[in-house]
Amino acid sequence: MENQNPAPSKELPKLLILRPPHIITLFENQFSDRFQLLKPWESPIPTDQFLDMYCTSIEAMLISGRTPVPAEILRRLPSLRFIATTSAGLNHIDLPECRRRGISVVNAGSEYSEDVADMAVVLLIDVLRRITAANRYVRAGVWPIKGDYPLGSKLAGKRVGIIGLGSIGLEVAKRLEAFGCSISYNSRKKKPSVPFTFYDNVCDLATNCDVIVLCCALTDQTRHMINKEVLLALGKEGVIINVARGPVIDEKELVRCLVEGEIAGAGLDVFENEPQVPEELRALDNVVLSPHRAVLTNESLWDLCQLMLGNLEAFFSNKPLLSLVVDE
Amino acid sequence: MENQNPAPSKELPKLLILRPPHIITLFENQFSDRFQLLKPWESPIPTDQFLDMYCTSIEAMLISGRTPVPAEILRRLPSLRFIATTSAGLNHIDLPECRRRGISVVNAGSEYSEDVADMAVVLLIDVLRRITAANRYVRAGVWPIKGDYPLGSKLAGKRVGIIGLGSIGLEVAKRLEAFGCSISYNSRKKKPSVPFTFYDNVCDLATNCDVIVLCCALTDQTRHMINKEVLLALGKEGVIINVARGPVIDEKELVRCLVEGEIAGAGLDVFENEPQVPEELRALDNVVLSPHRAVLTNESLWDLCQLMLGNLEAFFSNKPLLSLVVDE
Repeated sequence: MENQNPAPSKELPKLLILRPPHIITLFENQFSDRFQLLKPWESPIPTDQFLDMYCTSIEAMLISGRTPVPAEILRRLPSLRFIATTSAGLNHIDLPECRRRGISVVNAGSEYSEDVADMAVVLLIDVLRRITAANRYVRAGVWPIKGDYPLGSKLAGKRVGIIGLGSIGLEVAKRLEAFGCSISYNSRKKKPSVPFTFYDNVCDLATNCDVIVLCCALTDQTRHMINKEVLLALGKEGVIINVARGPVIDEKELVRCLVEGEIAGAGLDVFENEPQVPEELRALDNVVLSPHRAVLTNESLWDLCQLMLGNLEAFFSNKPLLSLVVDE
Repeated sequence: MENQNPAPSKELPKLLILRPPHIITLFENQFSDRFQLLKPWESPIPTDQFLDMYCTSIEAMLISGRTPVPAEILRRLPSLRFIATTSAGLNHIDLPECRRRGISVVNAGSEYSEDVADMAVVLLIDVLRRITAANRYVRAGVWPIKGDYPLGSKLAGKRVGIIGLGSIGLEVAKRLEAFGCSISYNSRKKKPSVPFTFYDNVCDLATNCDVIVLCCALTDQTRHMINKEVLLALGKEGVIINVARGPVIDEKELVRCLVEGEIAGAGLDVFENEPQVPEELRALDNVVLSPHRAVLTNESLWDLCQLMLGNLEAFFSNKPLLSLVVDE
């Protein structure tokens, strides 16, 4: 849809977009109606020069979770006061530098929680019940030849440990309770309002669980949190689900444990070096691999677009931001 | 484990097993400790002759859902008074003839309900979120080459119509409510105790739903219940999940609708001519195919074994049967 009466673009506030997030690809007019979009990827000028040209007039930037914003970029933008990222995670942004500079950061808030939680649940049932493996079996036409496919494992009664009980973790817990799982969790702090058992140590959680579901942010504290020790504590019948970020798991160690049967299976939406997925992992039957699609569905994209527009308009009109990242 | 002090087998009540169900393969001693097992498949004598040899002394029979018990078999067993089937469905047994003869039939009761409901949910999320298709994409190594996989569709807010609101259907409803779906249903009769909208007509249900989940028994009334008219009523965005029996759907019509985009996708655990699955279906990206594994997990098999033993012991000691099929 073309805007019938576009205001002259010079009157619109400037919005830097380093690389186009999905919502720009799909709903660009929603943004270009309200902002003057600065799009270095469409310019013949190299990005650095492009930024230098506009640097004093750029106050706001819209990025996706795939656009790193290191201190180096921030230094090029001395007037920057606002970053909107379409991701829930923030590990691509130099947050300490933003804090130092007083740059406000908004993210997708809990916009993704339901979709991510659904993905965690489907990956878990898939691993336990061998859905994608059995689907391969049927598609290959071997069911009539080799007969019954091996049985899977029951979800009810499984002890599930959720790491990171934020809005995603809580949605995962709500769903898995309906399946008869018992829930415990690890997070930075014990949450007084939830009825689940808290473990302040990830290894203890793994020892007492059949399944670990990773829903935490990637931080210096959580990087490679799932290491050899935790995987061995989870044990030979254990299953790990990752809908958080790839580097929360020591992927090399995970692959070794899966290959050697030290754990039973894994459902992974994220990987250490996306889109690269280790070849050994791709050959295993006891893993389900998803190309980082937990976070979004077609339905959520529109809601996300509206949230980002709301945040941007609030910023430019000095109103309270809708999904401000609280200093952690 | 060998029984240390087996009672002389002639003292044990006879139990005919036409073909071995899973629980016999796995837990035969549990049964052979208590019953004299008649196993025609292990005998060099043809089955008909085998049955004729024992016909006057066979009062009880244990079968799986894959062993047809037509009137012809029942006629060969004039003393038969009890059939235990390890299935939930009963369409393999000539029930009217059983009723006429006063043969009691017990089934798996609600032993499978949780496992089947889990399968229905995982198939639905899989189709909506394209899990097995995206898993193929990652395994084939094309993610780094072709980039982002297309987004799927959100589960929350979907209008799900359950056909057959027995113990399985109710477990499906319980789970899908936790995902934010709205539930309606069709069954033989409106259930006064449930809060979901009832449709007495399957086409009306399909018209008002995004998803149909089949949880009903296969009967003369439900055979090919899902026909062209219902599929067109479900529509181009519609998804169908079948954890009931293959012939509830007109499979040829389903394949045509899937190929031509008349419906959006399907998750199928059952097929019209198992283990044969139409080649066209196996080539489609918008279907998830499971080799009739909804019904069982390793964990449920032991529970099922105990239920069957309990029923058999109740029968032979004239006590109330545990999972008697009530005449419908």
